[in-house]
Amino acid sequence: MTSIVRDQWYVAAYGREVARELFSRTVCGESILFWRTEAGDVTAMSDRCVHRRFPLSQEPSHLVGDTVVCGYHGFTYGSDGVCVAVPGQTRVPRTARLKAYPVVEQDSFVWVFIGDPDRAATTDIPRAPWLAQDGWTTVSGMEPLAARASLLVDNLMDLSHETYLHGGYIGTPEVAETPITTEVDEEARVVYVSRHMADAACPPFYARSTGIEGRITRWQDIEYHPPCLYLLHSRIAPAGVLPPEEGPDDQAFHVEVVYAITPETEHSTHDFWMVARDFALDDQGVTDFLAESNRTVVLQDVVALDVLEKVVEGEKENYQELSINIDTGGLAARRLLAAMVEEGAAEQAPVAVR
Amino acid sequence: MTSIVRDQWYVAAYGREVARELFSRTVCGESILFWRTEAGDVTAMSDRCVHRRFPLSQEPSHLVGDTVVCGYHGFTYGSDGVCVAVPGQTRVPRTARLKAYPVVEQDSFVWVFIGDPDRAATTDIPRAPWLAQDGWTTVSGMEPLAARASLLVDNLMDLSHETYLHGGYIGTPEVAETPITTEVDEEARVVYVSRHMADAACPPFYARSTGIEGRITRWQDIEYHPPCLYLLHSRIAPAGVLPPEEGPDDQAFHVEVVYAITPETEHSTHDFWMVARDFALDDQGVTDFLAESNRTVVLQDVVALDVLEKVVEGEKENYQELSINIDTGGLAARRLLAAMVEEGAAEQAPVAVR
Amino acid sequence: MTSIVRDQWYVAAYGREVARELFSRTVCGESILFWRTEAGDVTAMSDRCVHRRFPLSQEPSHLVGDTVVCGYHGFTYGSDGVCVAVPGQTRVPRTARLKAYPVVEQDSFVWVFIGDPDRAATTDIPRAPWLAQDGWTTVSGMEPLAARASLLVDNLMDLSHETYLHGGYIGTPEVAETPITTEVDEEARVVYVSRHMADAACPPFYARSTGIEGRITRWQDIEYHPPCLYLLHSRIAPAGVLPPEEGPDDQAFHVEVVYAITPETEHSTHDFWMVARDFALDDQGVTDFLAESNRTVVLQDVVALDVLEKVVEGEKENYQELSINIDTGGLAARRLLAAMVEEGAAEQAPVAVR
Repeated sequence: MTSIVRDQWYVAAYGREVARELFSRTVCGESILFWRTEAGDVTAMSDRCVHRRFPLSQEPSHLVGDTVVCGYHGFTYGSDGVCVAVPGQTRVPRTARLKAYPVVEQDSFVWVFIGDPDRAATTDIPRAPWLAQDGWTTVSGMEPLAARASLLVDNLMDLSHETYLHGGYIGTPEVAETPITTEVDEEARVVYVSRHMADAACPPFYARSTGIEGRITRWQDIEYHPPCLYLLHSRIAPAGVLPPEEGPDDQAFHVEVVYAITPETEHSTHDFWMVARDFALDDQGVTDFLAESNRTVVLQDVVALDVLEKVVEGEKENYQELSINIDTGGLAARRLLAAMVEEGAAEQAPVAVR
Repeated sequence: MTSIVRDQWYVAAYGREVARELFSRTVCGESILFWRTEAGDVTAMSDRCVHRRFPLSQEPSHLVGDTVVCGYHGFTYGSDGVCVAVPGQTRVPRTARLKAYPVVEQDSFVWVFIGDPDRAATTDIPRAPWLAQDGWTTVSGMEPLAARASLLVDNLMDLSHETYLHGGYIGTPEVAETPITTEVDEEARVVYVSRHMADAACPPFYARSTGIEGRITRWQDIEYHPPCLYLLHSRIAPAGVLPPEEGPDDQAFHVEVVYAITPETEHSTHDFWMVARDFALDDQGVTDFLAESNRTVVLQDVVALDVLEKVVEGEKENYQELSINIDTGGLAARRLLAAMVEEGAAEQAPVAVR
Repeated sequence: MTSIVRDQWYVAAYGREVARELFSRTVCGESILFWRTEAGDVTAMSDRCVHRRFPLSQEPSHLVGDTVVCGYHGFTYGSDGVCVAVPGQTRVPRTARLKAYPVVEQDSFVWVFIGDPDRAATTDIPRAPWLAQDGWTTVSGMEPLAARASLLVDNLMDLSHETYLHGGYIGTPEVAETPITTEVDEEARVVYVSRHMADAACPPFYARSTGIEGRITRWQDIEYHPPCLYLLHSRIAPAGVLPPEEGPDDQAFHVEVVYAITPETEHSTHDFWMVARDFALDDQGVTDFLAESNRTVVLQDVVALDVLEKVVEGEKENYQELSINIDTGGLAARRLLAAMVEEGAAEQAPVAVR
């Protein structure tokens, strides 16, 4: 039984990863070939030659202008995936075309649509505008996770783990101690989880980047758009400093922590992470510190979740977890994801019956 | 179909392996967490947090006094496995408790009971008293075996293999040549296999440790208590020297070779080995020699059995082995083990039916 | 469902690989032990002791004269596989014998018959006489392939891939451009594929070995004897030089490229390759060059086919390839192989029904 939601947009790559070279990434179990045309547009097509399914990303496959030439027998495809040449004959079979994927470049990401391409145009792509916007400086990376995507969703929806798994980086006792509020927008399919700490220790991650000494008011406002995009609006200010009734909140420091959670397979995930800030924009020291710190934090999660994946795989069926208040957001996310998987299955059912 | 006997005591560790650190070992497919309380008692509980099944042996999980704190979200458990604290709320759910295992420290081992804990008190733990007794000096170790436990049982029940696999260490031609006698105590469930060599070459293992020059009378008396404990009573004396009718057998050298055969999974085994002697008690040279020699012998078995495991896994079903006289003890052991597995299955059947 | 044809001869080794040491190779999923008797004859028997299936090729198993002694318990077998000694008793069970394989040494190969031994005598072994014949010099090797044999058959039946995968070695544009002719001898079960290039660039492989400068007439005449033997008769001459109506074709250079395609398992293959030439017979420089070049070419195939194996294993069932004219020979080979597999299944069916 799949846990992957189809008929949705997924982040396949950062725009900077796709250039005039053949680049392959597996998204939701589908091997997809990406490259940029001479005009600079990103293409996305199946990474399997129609002839003998040789991966088009595999050497000696290569680009020639706006075509890709298979390294096995020379089948040649245009940027739309249509085959334009085959060996040993001049006639190209009409059915010789690679599956092409709807693709959009936005907010520094390359998004691809997984599922029925006809639904792409009517399916929203959620936004993370800070990542490519004036007034913000962003650090980012991607770590491969040998764990199913739902374990990363669980992890990010319940930040009480910061206190234990990320102590010394972003965790302090107050994160685990402070209760959360959770809201679910069933129609828009967004889960909101908020934790507002009025008077908390300032973890090194924020102390060194903002320069605040002493205790802080720390707000964590999560906004999860299943399946792929997770936003954490983080507000840091000296203890007691709240947003003004009117005008800009310029006594506070704002950090937008963004994750794109893209299943590679049923049991592995591309863990894209970004940290955008509205302060110290040109301070390379802060940039380097946040990049290194956040990568360390992500790798702490990767170690833990890779272990958990093995645990879950080895577990007997019908294993019963115990959930408490902090899990409200994570459980809501699971519920939405399960409903979306089921919808996909229902839509595909008539096809399967034929 | 499982080959693991349940409702039995198994050696999980040497007592020396369990200290004031979190220690995990998988026994019969169950991941068990061991640690010593401040008072020095060994605890045994499930190595999976009840919340999101994070292994409690995994960093940054840690001990705080007589509690263990989960490194993911901070669930905290006492030495009885009962949860005493959870994040974000003061109420601890009543069902939040780890499975606790009956545990006994005896004869240098940590024994755990695998199965229905209510049967632990009425199930005997077999003894190997020499391992922690005055008048005996013991060397010991544990080697991980990537093979099912039954292959190690086969190996140890038929010592004719010493001649071939352990030539130059403990094997001489007489071991393979001398017939065995086998007895089975069906009620007590013990298999006895004896091989008494009246006039045999003395292998290096015994020549160097006892100082005997020339030929020996060598007795091997096996006593196997399925599933876990294997005892080899080994008597070495100059050729022709038999035990006296009365009084101590002090012209002979006695060695108690003990194995604890603990399934880790269906296809891997903890191979605990010990050699206790009643001579040269304080001779460090003899101690070092026996430790090194026996470890070498065990590793020769490990190499052979790891190969055999792969052979058996790759074999077609209904493969027919050919057995001869030397296999009588091994076949009896298999029969007892199969009966014990079947009993366990029968007892669990009504539960499975509900 | 197996893809391995039974009741056929397969190349198990080069004759030079089998000497007075125990040598094991898995052929069509069967582990076979090879060694040479003191008289120099090759023996082939099951590599599993009948007692506890210890591999007879595994140390400390060893040869004693014309017998092999199992390293686990000392079961001893003659060159016909019959057991001649067991431990602990003088009587040897009558059924104690290893499966013996029909074996023939021919054309530098050790051929074994996989299937019902009674069919061996009436089943032809195809010939590759140049490999051990005066007037020819041969280089050869074997590369392990982590891919099913049929992927190597596909590869070799369609040489248009030389242009792309082996450019700079044996590929030029003309190979992919020139149409092929295909013939199938249904009765003899041979597939012929020919590509005659009248005026082609000379690839480095032939330019450096023959010394020809300028363009060439290049003939590729494939003769595939499924399942195991593939012959490529390659004729190279200066452009326009055709064979004379009468007399020897001594204005041309002849190369016999031979592959033996032996399944190791359903998903791995022994890729034996040989290049025999009728020129520069004693030129060590040419010998070294052809050996190194052809090994490089074979390894390019190995890399590609190992990737393809993973692709095919990960593919959904009912995957549809697209085939074109160049695939005619490969498709014919697949059809013959499938028919031969089906025959084997039909012959075995009555046995399975009993």
